[in-house]
Amino acid sequence: MSDFQHVLSAISFNADGLVAAIAQQHDTGEVLMMAWMNAEAVEETLREKRVCYFSRSRGKLWRKGETSGQVQALIELRIDCDGDALLLRVDQTGVACHTGRRSCFYTAVRDGQLVEIATPQVHPDTLYTQT
Amino acid sequence: MSDFQHVLSAISFNADGLVAAIAQQHDTGEVLMMAWMNAEAVEETLREKRVCYFSRSRGKLWRKGETSGQVQALIELRIDCDGDALLLRVDQTGVACHTGRRSCFYTAVRDGQLVEIATPQVHPDTLYTQT
Repeated sequence: MSDFQHVLSAISFNADGLVAAIAQQHDTGEVLMMAWMNAEAVEETLREKRVCYFSRSRGKLWRKGETSGQVQALIELRIDCDGDALLLRVDQTGVACHTGRRSCFYTAVRDGQLVEIATPQVHPDTLYTQT
Repeated sequence: MSDFQHVLSAISFNADGLVAAIAQQHDTGEVLMMAWMNAEAVEETLREKRVCYFSRSRGKLWRKGETSGQVQALIELRIDCDGDALLLRVDQTGVACHTGRRSCFYTAVRDGQLVEIATPQVHPDTLYTQT
């Protein structure tokens, strides 16, 4: 039985066995990204204090930063009132977004138009060359 | 055709026609809640500058605060890099959570235990008595 069974029991995983997880930089409050976790990912994240998601496209655990080095250290995991969303308070190394931007939420609607409000801090090609 | 058709086109609604929406208090950075929107909810939110979700349990539009008075004024809507999550920068009147707490994310995992880190600011019974 998992050490975190009581935590997992408080989470309402959806029909696919997943729960939405929002990553927020713990000190600045910046919302970095939203992704998904299965029970195994939640457990690994709590155990390793390093965020692990579940990649829906690849159908497997996605250890954030395992290929890019842009890891998320877990500061605190929080669960919402109905258990179907998690808030991950993290310390993000580098950038969260695969485009090289700090946050994935870099497109805003302003005056009815889509506007890019952040530029890449890192060239995306350089993000995925680490061994 | 919607005035916001180009915005809606940038959103990847899921098989149920929904997209995840994270509400964040615009000035403090506090993550208040996560809920879902359909295209109609996104459009109404942009038009009215007041957040409208789609209630999956009730199967209809959910104008946040319509029964409780705890409305969310929209400051800015942002879309993530793959279009399957929205970040709503809002100005929350009162509390976001139906339990009377400011944020729905009031349960944290600390030392492996579930800990309530916020108390209700309003008694939930008083939230839903407005006409």
